[in-house]
Amino acid sequence: MKWHFDDFVYGSIDGAVTTFAIVASVVGAGLSPGIILILGFANLFADGFSMAAANYQASKARNEFIQMKRKQEEWEIDNLEEQERDEIRDIYREKGFKDELLEEVVRIITSRRKVWLDTMMKEELGLIEDKKNPLDSSFSTFFGFNVIGLIPLIPFMIFIIVGVEANSEAFVYSIISVSIAFFMVGMIKGKIVKRSKVRSGTYTLIIGGTAAFVAYLVGYGLNSLIN
Amino acid sequence: MKWHFDDFVYGSIDGAVTTFAIVASVVGAGLSPGIILILGFANLFADGFSMAAANYQASKARNEFIQMKRKQEEWEIDNLEEQERDEIRDIYREKGFKDELLEEVVRIITSRRKVWLDTMMKEELGLIEDKKNPLDSSFSTFFGFNVIGLIPLIPFMIFIIVGVEANSEAFVYSIISVSIAFFMVGMIKGKIVKRSKVRSGTYTLIIGGTAAFVAYLVGYGLNSLIN
Repeated sequence: MKWHFDDFVYGSIDGAVTTFAIVASVVGAGLSPGIILILGFANLFADGFSMAAANYQASKARNEFIQMKRKQEEWEIDNLEEQERDEIRDIYREKGFKDELLEEVVRIITSRRKVWLDTMMKEELGLIEDKKNPLDSSFSTFFGFNVIGLIPLIPFMIFIIVGVEANSEAFVYSIISVSIAFFMVGMIKGKIVKRSKVRSGTYTLIIGGTAAFVAYLVGYGLNSLIN
Repeated sequence: MKWHFDDFVYGSIDGAVTTFAIVASVVGAGLSPGIILILGFANLFADGFSMAAANYQASKARNEFIQMKRKQEEWEIDNLEEQERDEIRDIYREKGFKDELLEEVVRIITSRRKVWLDTMMKEELGLIEDKKNPLDSSFSTFFGFNVIGLIPLIPFMIFIIVGVEANSEAFVYSIISVSIAFFMVGMIKGKIVKRSKVRSGTYTLIIGGTAAFVAYLVGYGLNSLIN
């Protein structure tokens, strides 16, 4: 099982936003913290599963697309040999090769089918076979969705454990913790891509916060319509 | 604005599953079709927006990761020149070059900084700069989420327009239409990657159907707990 950071970021932001949106709309409707937890966990599980399944399909689609392109190139090498050889020549001319040396390079590249194919894929099409296993991608998404998506629920869990019924206070803590979560995800992102952690954190906080606020507005408007 | 098929698949499956899950749980709770539509559209908008925002962040993280790796390689070329030259030599030895020709190739590749860098990125790290604009990816996701996610709601819309209150019948039509939607997404996927359309459709139907069923079970269990 391998860890995929970009899928984790994807899942974690969506998990935090959708869980927070549920919290916000249920608080708006004045329901009990128990219902917030049930709906929140239902979202973590069902939407997390759905997103992981969708991610699996999308990753698989990408892999299949690359395999299809590879087969197409194989066919072209078999049936349009000269044309494909010219393409290799153009690619290496671009890199600065010319005259006899260029011809030698073309001869060697095209003498081994795998090297020829790989060169066409990388240089002509810009495609590199993803070694990512779709299952790993979807697990990283699910993990991010559930771990970071749990954060907006924690204040409500604590309030229930200590036996206090104070939804609006728990909601304030929930806003604070989801903001910290967005900032943290952004900081981890900044650390991995070696950019300013504070800037990356602030940026993710703004994007995630906006999405959460939109979700809150929809939830709030919705409750006004129903009640 | 460019169209990204893999992001569309991702958004459309998640959109159909989550909207269907809401439909299923609200039908289970015996609420009116009006509430199903309000909650369904709220999900389309809020979750669709959230997913698009998360996708934007994840795509941006990937681009930044590649840029960071490129800077790292640049530093290595500047500071560990011989080592990097050896790596180019190893890469071209792998392709079948040897002796003097190999040396000539190494000389030409390493004589232009951009060619050298591109070769290290593609051949050593397997990274190709994604020309995908993160905004295009996130728009494709949002579009897929909303267009395909709308499908489970259509029967309820029709029933409301014709003035019939029959949730369980509308729910049956909803199951049928969401199944058709999954099959269609799979068929489009099959067409693009040039595989069997029926097989690809069936496969997506099974994956999406399972996710929708899990979501339904959670929704159903949830309603039993609340009511």
